[in-house]
Amino acid sequence: MVPRYSRPQMEAIWSPAARYRIWFEIEALAAEAMAKLGTIPEDAARAIREKGAPRAAAIGEAEVARIDEIERETRHDVIAFLTFMAEGIGPEARFMHQGMTSSDVLDTCLAVQMTRAADLLIADIDAVLAALKARALEHRHTPTVGRSHGIHAEPTTFGLKLAGHYAEFARGRERLVAARREVATCAISGPVGTFASVDPRVEAFVAEKLGLEVEPVSTQVIPRDRHAAFFCALAVVASGIERLAIEVRHLQRSEVREAEEFFHPGQKGSSSMPHKRNPVLSENLTGLARLVRGYVTPALENVALWHERDISHSSVERVIAPDATIALDFALMRLAGMMEKLTVYPARMQANLDGLGGVVHSQKVLLALTQAGMSREDAYRAVQRAAMATWQALGTPGGQTFRANLLADPEVSARLNAEALDAAMDARRDFAHVDTVFRRVFGEA
Amino acid sequence: MVPRYSRPQMEAIWSPAARYRIWFEIEALAAEAMAKLGTIPEDAARAIREKGAPRAAAIGEAEVARIDEIERETRHDVIAFLTFMAEGIGPEARFMHQGMTSSDVLDTCLAVQMTRAADLLIADIDAVLAALKARALEHRHTPTVGRSHGIHAEPTTFGLKLAGHYAEFARGRERLVAARREVATCAISGPVGTFASVDPRVEAFVAEKLGLEVEPVSTQVIPRDRHAAFFCALAVVASGIERLAIEVRHLQRSEVREAEEFFHPGQKGSSSMPHKRNPVLSENLTGLARLVRGYVTPALENVALWHERDISHSSVERVIAPDATIALDFALMRLAGMMEKLTVYPARMQANLDGLGGVVHSQKVLLALTQAGMSREDAYRAVQRAAMATWQALGTPGGQTFRANLLADPEVSARLNAEALDAAMDARRDFAHVDTVFRRVFGEA
Amino acid sequence: MVPRYSRPQMEAIWSPAARYRIWFEIEALAAEAMAKLGTIPEDAARAIREKGAPRAAAIGEAEVARIDEIERETRHDVIAFLTFMAEGIGPEARFMHQGMTSSDVLDTCLAVQMTRAADLLIADIDAVLAALKARALEHRHTPTVGRSHGIHAEPTTFGLKLAGHYAEFARGRERLVAARREVATCAISGPVGTFASVDPRVEAFVAEKLGLEVEPVSTQVIPRDRHAAFFCALAVVASGIERLAIEVRHLQRSEVREAEEFFHPGQKGSSSMPHKRNPVLSENLTGLARLVRGYVTPALENVALWHERDISHSSVERVIAPDATIALDFALMRLAGMMEKLTVYPARMQANLDGLGGVVHSQKVLLALTQAGMSREDAYRAVQRAAMATWQALGTPGGQTFRANLLADPEVSARLNAEALDAAMDARRDFAHVDTVFRRVFGEA
Amino acid sequence: MVPRYSRPQMEAIWSPAARYRIWFEIEALAAEAMAKLGTIPEDAARAIREKGAPRAAAIGEAEVARIDEIERETRHDVIAFLTFMAEGIGPEARFMHQGMTSSDVLDTCLAVQMTRAADLLIADIDAVLAALKARALEHRHTPTVGRSHGIHAEPTTFGLKLAGHYAEFARGRERLVAARREVATCAISGPVGTFASVDPRVEAFVAEKLGLEVEPVSTQVIPRDRHAAFFCALAVVASGIERLAIEVRHLQRSEVREAEEFFHPGQKGSSSMPHKRNPVLSENLTGLARLVRGYVTPALENVALWHERDISHSSVERVIAPDATIALDFALMRLAGMMEKLTVYPARMQANLDGLGGVVHSQKVLLALTQAGMSREDAYRAVQRAAMATWQALGTPGGQTFRANLLADPEVSARLNAEALDAAMDARRDFAHVDTVFRRVFGEA
Repeated sequence: MVPRYSRPQMEAIWSPAARYRIWFEIEALAAEAMAKLGTIPEDAARAIREKGAPRAAAIGEAEVARIDEIERETRHDVIAFLTFMAEGIGPEARFMHQGMTSSDVLDTCLAVQMTRAADLLIADIDAVLAALKARALEHRHTPTVGRSHGIHAEPTTFGLKLAGHYAEFARGRERLVAARREVATCAISGPVGTFASVDPRVEAFVAEKLGLEVEPVSTQVIPRDRHAAFFCALAVVASGIERLAIEVRHLQRSEVREAEEFFHPGQKGSSSMPHKRNPVLSENLTGLARLVRGYVTPALENVALWHERDISHSSVERVIAPDATIALDFALMRLAGMMEKLTVYPARMQANLDGLGGVVHSQKVLLALTQAGMSREDAYRAVQRAAMATWQALGTPGGQTFRANLLADPEVSARLNAEALDAAMDARRDFAHVDTVFRRVFGEA
Repeated sequence: MVPRYSRPQMEAIWSPAARYRIWFEIEALAAEAMAKLGTIPEDAARAIREKGAPRAAAIGEAEVARIDEIERETRHDVIAFLTFMAEGIGPEARFMHQGMTSSDVLDTCLAVQMTRAADLLIADIDAVLAALKARALEHRHTPTVGRSHGIHAEPTTFGLKLAGHYAEFARGRERLVAARREVATCAISGPVGTFASVDPRVEAFVAEKLGLEVEPVSTQVIPRDRHAAFFCALAVVASGIERLAIEVRHLQRSEVREAEEFFHPGQKGSSSMPHKRNPVLSENLTGLARLVRGYVTPALENVALWHERDISHSSVERVIAPDATIALDFALMRLAGMMEKLTVYPARMQANLDGLGGVVHSQKVLLALTQAGMSREDAYRAVQRAAMATWQALGTPGGQTFRANLLADPEVSARLNAEALDAAMDARRDFAHVDTVFRRVFGEA
Repeated sequence: MVPRYSRPQMEAIWSPAARYRIWFEIEALAAEAMAKLGTIPEDAARAIREKGAPRAAAIGEAEVARIDEIERETRHDVIAFLTFMAEGIGPEARFMHQGMTSSDVLDTCLAVQMTRAADLLIADIDAVLAALKARALEHRHTPTVGRSHGIHAEPTTFGLKLAGHYAEFARGRERLVAARREVATCAISGPVGTFASVDPRVEAFVAEKLGLEVEPVSTQVIPRDRHAAFFCALAVVASGIERLAIEVRHLQRSEVREAEEFFHPGQKGSSSMPHKRNPVLSENLTGLARLVRGYVTPALENVALWHERDISHSSVERVIAPDATIALDFALMRLAGMMEKLTVYPARMQANLDGLGGVVHSQKVLLALTQAGMSREDAYRAVQRAAMATWQALGTPGGQTFRANLLADPEVSARLNAEALDAAMDARRDFAHVDTVFRRVFGEA
Repeated sequence: MVPRYSRPQMEAIWSPAARYRIWFEIEALAAEAMAKLGTIPEDAARAIREKGAPRAAAIGEAEVARIDEIERETRHDVIAFLTFMAEGIGPEARFMHQGMTSSDVLDTCLAVQMTRAADLLIADIDAVLAALKARALEHRHTPTVGRSHGIHAEPTTFGLKLAGHYAEFARGRERLVAARREVATCAISGPVGTFASVDPRVEAFVAEKLGLEVEPVSTQVIPRDRHAAFFCALAVVASGIERLAIEVRHLQRSEVREAEEFFHPGQKGSSSMPHKRNPVLSENLTGLARLVRGYVTPALENVALWHERDISHSSVERVIAPDATIALDFALMRLAGMMEKLTVYPARMQANLDGLGGVVHSQKVLLALTQAGMSREDAYRAVQRAAMATWQALGTPGGQTFRANLLADPEVSARLNAEALDAAMDARRDFAHVDTVFRRVFGEA
C-alpha cells in the first residue's frame, strides 16, 4: 500500500523483519516441542532459541538484504531464511525445521499476522463506534429530513441516522471477530499434511504458544476458504464505510449544507477556486472502500488450489494481505476522526426540513383520511393532488403550503377540519420512537 | 437462472406467486397486530385475513398478469398488489398497510425468502457432507500420492483428501448458518424507519410470527451489509465446490486416471470422438462457482444506498438473489451426487504413487541423514542429487530407483546402510497419523 | 434475465429455438461446403438442407422438449440436436457434422448470437446518442452550476454537461463496435482444432456465409479472451450509464430540483407518502449497471481453459451472455427514453447558481488579483477570506455577498476597484468556449 | 506493488519524483503557450522554464519530503507542489497555473504515465511474442496429444499449441495499443472544463508537445471510462498469461512430464523434499493474473464520478495504476523468460500420445465407418464400444489395443478390413493442416 494510506502500526505487522521474527518463533517453538518429545536433542532446541533469538531480533535492512541474496541462489524463501539463521546458530541448526515444510512456517506466520491485523482493525472499529455513539447521543433529538431516493420523505433526527451507521459498524465488528477466528489456526503437519515426519503434538504446542487453534486438516497449507472469508469480511466493513462517507458527501453538498468535514486553518480546497471547501476525506474513503472490495475477487480465486496445494495464492497474498488491512485500517481511523470533528448545522437541517412547504407530512394526512373513512385509493389521490400543487409552486410567489392546499380541497375538508389536520400533521409523532431505537442500539434506559 | 441449472424447490421460493403470498402474510399479520393495539378495527383485520387468504392462495399466472397490469398504471409494485388485494377484500382493505411503507413488505419478504433459501442450501451442504464422509471412511486407508504444485510430494490416503474437503464444507455450513442469521430480520418501521405511524409492537409481532428477529435500526430498508455478507458466504462455499471439482478434474486426466465421474450407459462424451469420457460435471461445477462468485461484487456495491434508502439495490437483488441461490443449490446437489457415484481406482493410485522410482520418500531420507549427523545443507544436496538422477532416468531402460541411487552415493552410504535406509523410507510412517486427522474431523474414537 | 428487464428483440436472440436454428444453419452450410469439396455426396448436402430447413424452422416448445429428452439419455446437447434432426432428415443425416466437433457448432453459433446482440446494443446506443444530442443542443446555453466534489465550482451550461455524456457514449459505441469485431469469428476446425478431418475451406465457406471472420487458431474452441474483451466493453458502457443516472439522481434531489424524470399521470411514487416523486428510473439504471459489471469477473475467469479446451466456460456463458446483453439492452433503451422525456428546470438552475452569493466567481477574482501584481499566495488568501465570510453568512439576515466582502477588503480594493471587480466576475467569460466544445463533440460549425 | 514483483523501469514511471517532473513540464508548457497568446508575460514563461527546470530535475527524496510537509499544511497536493516550485522560481511563479485547476495537471500527468506504462507493456508483450514464435517454430512438428476436458482427444503438435497462445498475445497487443490510445489525452480546461480562464489553444499546445490528443470534453477531469477500458485491457492480457501458465503447470505434472520450467543449478524446490522440481514460475504467474484482474472492479467503479467530478477515483488510481502496470510488466517479462527457457520433452509427449492404446484415433474410424455406409448412431456405438474396452484394459496384462478391439468387432470388420482401418487411423492426417494454421498466425509461406 502506498505510504499515503498506511499507518505505521499496521505496516509494521507486514514488514519483512516482522515476518522473519515470527518465522523464527515458530521454528524455535517447534524445536522446543520436538526436544520435549525426544525427536531432537534438548541441547539443539536450546541452542536454536538462545543463539537464534538475538539473531532474529537483530534483523534489520542489512539482514533482509542478506536473506534476499541467499534466496536468489536457492530460489526458495524459507530455505534462504533457514540458511541465514544457521549461519548464526551453528551445527545445531540442522535440527531446525525437522520434518516440517515451508508452508508450516509460512501459513502459521500468516495466521499470526492476520490475527494481529484483525486486532488492530477491531480496535479501529471501536474508535469509529465511539465517535458515532458520541455524535448520535449529541444529536439524538436534532430534527432533520429523512430522504428516500434522495427525495424528502419524512422527518427523522440526525442522531437516528448515526445510530443506523453505529449498528452497521457493530455488525462489522462482529464480522471481523468471526473473520479473526476463521484465520487463527496453526498448521505444523509437514508435506501434504500427513504428519509423516512431525508429531501432531508439535503442532498443538506451537498453536497454544501462539494463541492459535490447531488446523484440523491442513493439506500442507491452511485451506484458503478461511482467508477468503476474512477478506470478504473486510470488504463488507469497507462498504459500510462507503455508506457513511456518501451520507457525509451528500450532507455537505452546496444545496444541502447540513454538515461539513472539519476545514483546517491553512487548508486549501482547490488550486484554482479559493471558495471551495470539499468533502475530500469522505470522497477519499469512498475510493478506499473500492480498493478493499477489489481484493475480494483474487481472495476467492485463491481457494481452489490444486491437490494438496499449489503456490498461486502466494503472490496474491503478498500483496492483498498487507494492502487490504492497511487500507482498511487507514480508512477506519480516518472515518473515526472525521466523524468526531464533523461540523453539524442543525439550523440548516431545520430549514431544509421546512423547505418543501410541509409535504413531508403527507403520510400522516393519508392515514387520517383513511381513518376518517375514505378509501385508501381516494385518500391517496387527494393527498397527492395537494402535495403536487405545493411542490409545483415551490419558490414561486403566492405558492400555497401543503396545509393550505389540503384545506382548500373539498374532499379533504369534508373529512378533516383545520384542527384535525394540524393534529394529524403534528411533527412530534415523527420523533415518538427515537428513544425506542436508541435503546435497541445503545442499550440505554 | 436458466432452467438447466435450476431445481424446482429453490425456484419455487423465488416465484412471483410465492412472493405475493409472503407479502400478504406480512400485511395480514401487521393488520392483526394493529387490531390488537386498537390502531385499526378488529373486524378489518379479520376481513383482511379471511377474504385475503384465499385470494392470495389462489394467485396463479392470471393473477400475476393482472397485478402486472395494475403496476403498468401505478408504476409501483406494492401499490399494484394492494390494489389487487383490495379488489377481493373490499372496503376494509383500506386498513391494510396502515402506516407502513413498501420496503416494510419488500424487505421482510426478502428476509423470508433468503432464510428459506439458506435452509435449502444448508440441507444441500448436508448432502455433500454425507457423501464426503461416506467416501472418506471408505478410502481412509487407500494410499495415493499427495501432490504439491501438481508434483508428487509424499504419500497420503484418498480418504485424507476427502476429509479435508469435508472439513471445508463443514466450515461452509457454519458460514451459511451465520449468513442466514444475518438476513433473518424483519422491519415494519414505516417511512425512513421512524415508526411515526406504525407502532414498534407491530414489527415485533410480525417478526415473531415469521421466525425473524426485529431489525434494530431500519432506515425504511433493512441495511444491505446483511445481504452483502450473505452473498459473500455463498461465494466462499462456491469456491470450495470449485476446489473439489478441480481435484476430480485432475484425478480424471488421462495420465492420472485415479478417479472418474460416473459414466452413464448411453452417455456420449463427445459428438466427434467416441472414446471420450469427460469430467463434465466437475467442469460444470467450476463454471457455476464462477457465476456465484460473480454476484458478490454487485452485492457489495448495493450496501452504500443514499441516505435512508434509494432503490438501486432492487434490480440487483431481483436477479442475484434467485440466481445465486438457485445456482448454488444446483451445484451443491450436483456435487453430492457426483461424489456419491465417483468411480475410484485404487490400483491406479498405487501405480502412480510408485511411478517416480521412490523419490516421494526424499524427506524421510533427508531427516535420517541429518539425524545421522550430516548438516542440513549437505544432506539436502546428497538427497537432491540422487532424486534428480532417478527422475531423469524415469522410463529409460536401466534407470535406477531412488534407493539404488542413494546407496550408490558414498556420502549417503557412509551414514546409512541399506537396512537403515529401508527403515527411513518405510511408507507406514506416512499413514501413521491418518487416524489422528480423522478423529479431528469426524470426531471418531 | 428476469422478464422485468428484458426486451423481446434481445431475448429472441438467446431463445433455444433461435440457437437450434443457427446450429442447423452451420451444419447445413458445412455440409454444402463439404459437398463442393467432394467430401460428402452432393445429394446428402441437398437432403440436409431441404429436409432439415423446415424441421429447424418449425422448432417450437414441443421440439425443444423433445431435444431435451434425447439429451437426458445422451447427456450431450449437440448429439441430442443431431439425433433430433436425423429423425427428420433420414439416412443422409449421417453426413451431417462430418469431421466436426460440438464446439465448432456451439462456438460459431455463439459468435452469431453475440454479433446480433452487439448490433442491437449499437442501435440502442445510437438512440441514447440521439436523445443526448437533442437535449444538449436544446440546453446548449442554459446556465447551471458546475460542481466538483458536490460543491458549487463555476458556471457551466446544462448542454455542456450532456455533451460530455454524449462523448462518453460515443466512445462506448466505438468500444462495442470493436467488441463485436472481437467475437465475430467462425471455427470449424474439428477436435483440438487441427482440421484433421475437416478441410479448412469448409470453415472459410461457413464463415463467409455467416458474415464472420475465420478464427486463425481455434483449439477446438474459439479462444475466450475474445469473449472476455466483449463483456469488458459492456461493463464500461454500463458504467457510463451509471454516471449519467447518478447525475439525474443528483439533479432531482429535493434541495436541487434542477431536473426530474418524467412523472406519468397515474404514477404513484410511494405506497405511504403521496407527495413522493422519485428518480426510480435512474436508480434502476444504477442497479442494472452493477449487474452488467458483475459479469466481467466470470468472463475473465473463463479465459484460462485447460489445454485445448475444457467446458467450464459453458455454464457461465449460458447465463451471462444473455443476462449481460439483455440487461444492457434494457438499460440503454430505458436511458434513451428517460433522457428524451427528462423535465428540465432552467429557472431552478439559475437560482442554484446564484444561491451562494457569487463565490462561484472566486477563480476569476484570483486571476485578476495576480495579474494586478499580487502574489498567488496572497491573492488566494484574500479571496478565500472573502468567500468564506460569504459562505458563513448564507441565509443569515444581513449577510454580505462575495462582491461586497471583496470590496470591503483593503488588500483587494487596493488592487481592484468596483468596476475592475465586476469586469473580472463577468459571467459571460464562463460560457465563451461552450461552442468550442460543442464543435469538438458534434462537429458543428 | 511489493518489490518482489516490480521491475525498476516500470517502477520509475510511478515514482513521486517522476510525477513531479511531469507536473512541472505541464505547467511550463502551459505557461509558454499562455505567453505566446499574451495571457502572461513572455518573461514569466521564460523564468518558469529556466528557473523551474533545474529545480524539478533536482527533485529527490529530500525535496519530496519538503513537498509533503507543505501538503500537510495546505492539505492539497498540487498547491504544495506549486508552493515548492515558487520558492525556487520567485515572483514570476504567480503566472504558473493561471486559469488552470489541479486536475488539468493531475490528469494530464496520469495520461503521460499511463502511456509510458503502456509502451513498456507493449514492449514486454513483444518479448513474449518473440519467445512464443521461436518455440512454436522449433516445435512446429513435435507431435503431442491434444486434450479436451483434460482427456486425450486427438494428436496435435506442440508448436500448434504455442501458435494459439501467440495469436492470443497478438490480440492482447492490439488491445494494449487501443488502450494506450484511450488514455492518451490531455486536458487543460480549468474548473468544470469550461475554459473560462484558460484558452483552449493552451490545451492544444501542451497536448501536442506531450504527444497526446486533446480531450474533447473534460469536465475538469478526463472521463474515467477511458481508464476503466485501460484496466480491462490489462486484465484480459493477464488472463491470457494465466492460460499459458496453466498449460505449463499441466505439462509439468508428475504424470505428464512433457515440459518443465528451467531448474537452476543451486535451486531448491522444497524445504523438506529434496526431490521436488515445481512449476513455481507459472504458479506465480497464475497469482499475478488474479491480482491484475482484481483491479478491474475498482476501475469500473471509478467511472461514475459525481457531476463534473469528485475525487473518489484518486485514491484508487494512486494504488491500482502503479500496481496493475507493475504487476503485469513483471508477469509478462517473467513469462517471456520462462517460455524461452522451457525444457520440452518430445519423447515423453510421444509416449503419452501412445499411452491410451490408440483411442485418440476414434473420430477417424467413426468417419470411415459412416462413409462406408453405417449410420452415425451405429458407428458411434461400435467405436465407443471398442474404445471403452481398450480404456478399461489399460495397464492390465493382455489388454488389447484399440485397433485390435475394432478388428475383433464384427460390425466394424464387416465394413473395414485391417488395411482400410490402418488407412483411417493414419496419424499423418492429424498434422496435414499444421502449416495452414502457421501461415495464418505467422504469415509465412
